Amino acid sequence: MTETRPATPPPAVVALDVGGTGMKGWVCDRAGRSRRTAERPTPVAAGPDAVVRAVRDLVVELRGADDDIVAAGVVVPGMVDAANGVATWSANIGWRDVPLGTLLAADLGVPVAIDHDVRSGGLAEARIGAARGRASSLFVPVGTGIAGAFVVDGVAHAGARGAAGEVGHVIVHPDGEPCACGQHGCVETYASAAAVVRRYRARTGTARSAAEIAARLRVDPDARTVWDDAVTALSLGLVAATALYDPELVVIGGGLAAAGSVLLDPLVAALTARLAWRAPPPLVLAALGSAAGRYGAALIAWAAAGEPDIGSDWDTTAATTGVTA
Amino acid sequence: MTETRPATPPPAVVALDVGGTGMKGWVCDRAGRSRRTAERPTPVAAGPDAVVRAVRDLVVELRGADDDIVAAGVVVPGMVDAANGVATWSANIGWRDVPLGTLLAADLGVPVAIDHDVRSGGLAEARIGAARGRASSLFVPVGTGIAGAFVVDGVAHAGARGAAGEVGHVIVHPDGEPCACGQHGCVETYASAAAVVRRYRARTGTARSAAEIAARLRVDPDARTVWDDAVTALSLGLVAATALYDPELVVIGGGLAAAGSVLLDPLVAALTARLAWRAPPPLVLAALGSAAGRYGAALIAWAAAGEPDIGSDWDTTAATTGVTA
Repeated sequence: MTETRPATPPPAVVALDVGGTGMKGWVCDRAGRSRRTAERPTPVAAGPDAVVRAVRDLVVELRGADDDIVAAGVVVPGMVDAANGVATWSANIGWRDVPLGTLLAADLGVPVAIDHDVRSGGLAEARIGAARGRASSLFVPVGTGIAGAFVVDGVAHAGARGAAGEVGHVIVHPDGEPCACGQHGCVETYASAAAVVRRYRARTGTARSAAEIAARLRVDPDARTVWDDAVTALSLGLVAATALYDPELVVIGGGLAAAGSVLLDPLVAALTARLAWRAPPPLVLAALGSAAGRYGAALIAWAAAGEPDIGSDWDTTAATTGVTA
Repeated sequence: MTETRPATPPPAVVALDVGGTGMKGWVCDRAGRSRRTAERPTPVAAGPDAVVRAVRDLVVELRGADDDIVAAGVVVPGMVDAANGVATWSANIGWRDVPLGTLLAADLGVPVAIDHDVRSGGLAEARIGAARGRASSLFVPVGTGIAGAFVVDGVAHAGARGAAGEVGHVIVHPDGEPCACGQHGCVETYASAAAVVRRYRARTGTARSAAEIAARLRVDPDARTVWDDAVTALSLGLVAATALYDPELVVIGGGLAAAGSVLLDPLVAALTARLAWRAPPPLVLAALGSAAGRYGAALIAWAAAGEPDIGSDWDTTAATTGVTA
């Protein structure tokens, strides 16, 4: 004799990754499955107030009619005061001291966690991605810019001012090219996807994407030079990060990681060659792709719901396809 | 009516700082007062077994006839497995995988903590020295070499291989001078006291101490150049450390810190000038001088005795005179 159970769905959280271009959200159940997703452009041109409204609208839309949403997590770029749920500052979005946590908690009536996009992505890679099972890892997303998150025992180190992990702004060529940040010779000046595109165009007059440049290394000496410069700068940044953090594992993510072994192999070789007094930490490609931030948002939401250890049974093999990248 | 109390002394710990040249120990009571001190040369030339014997003898000598010694703490250079009390490796001393904790616990019959000299020194500066009250700090002793210890919430980050905090081996001039570690252009190659002496001698043919060179900056262009190079290299290392750790405070220690404002003022200026996208963390001189390691050894000993929070009432103003430097 079988008893029919009532069709109560398992509880879920709303998770949202707010970027300078787009906002990508989902509703994530206890098993890490997506109940629904939604994407919107980030209305940066309309000003910070419009972005805040758009975030609030999208979170409410994602919650929908579900009465089993137990928390929400939102990750944002720039500076973040996670303890108080405040988006402190973002150059891209233009906001300053937005009490996102309080606003969204009022909208939803559930606990809301706010944190930094890269640190949350690093947390996701550490907990359920490429660094699963490692006591410490350094997540380095190499995209338009280069950032970093050092995660120890499941906690991403934020720093005294929420500005830790800035691998991209380690100075590796003191007399080098100017960086957008105002310094000279930063890792990011040479090794970000944007830097590869810009430096190739400066040499050749031709605009190509980073992926196109990575595909031309055998036939195009300018592509080779620009790529080698990127690998050198990134390897020097990783020498510094290895010397200071001594991470158990380094996870390379972001758009440029799509180049796979074309990036990773020479990077491992360069790091090994530069580091004389110790072996380098193992370098691997990120597992969660552009979904790292959204998974991170889900993990901090579940933590806000009182489930900080959730995720060990999540299947993230379809991470990059589960939500549109 | 007063009652005469029995003359029971407060309990105390044995603390020892083992360096490549000398061993400096003391017996430290609950109030951080020294009951007695002892120093011996480290018999490195006689081999690692002789050093282990000398450490054991000195710890037993320090314990003396006192029956109220509740723990011991010994700090050593190189690589350390603090959890298991093993001195894993030291180039200077030549030992490998010495189970110091087990050996000394058998000698003394009390709990014994073993840890890294620089990390213990950083812990001491954080708990009872220049970074007292700070949530995070980076301790950078600039002496014969340059090391570092990043301390967060009273814990010095050891790293996956016990090799974190190596500020001295951040590469700041990729095509620069060879470092003893085998790399090129390390911070230590330019900014250690030994590097200042070596580079001044190479330019002038004259052997002078780092202190003498620091005293000649206004009258000796070679001294000025060598000193400026040291400040530049150290500032670039601190740019990397700031970008990665985002410490609340940086504490400059070691022998070169004896130069005081002659080192600190240009270092603050160089770091401020290099860092464009954020203000530098405050830089201060160490408070414990060459006693940082011995205080650190006492703190880890007290922690082994079940008193991890001791020290807040210790008077360390006489740190550099309480035990002979």
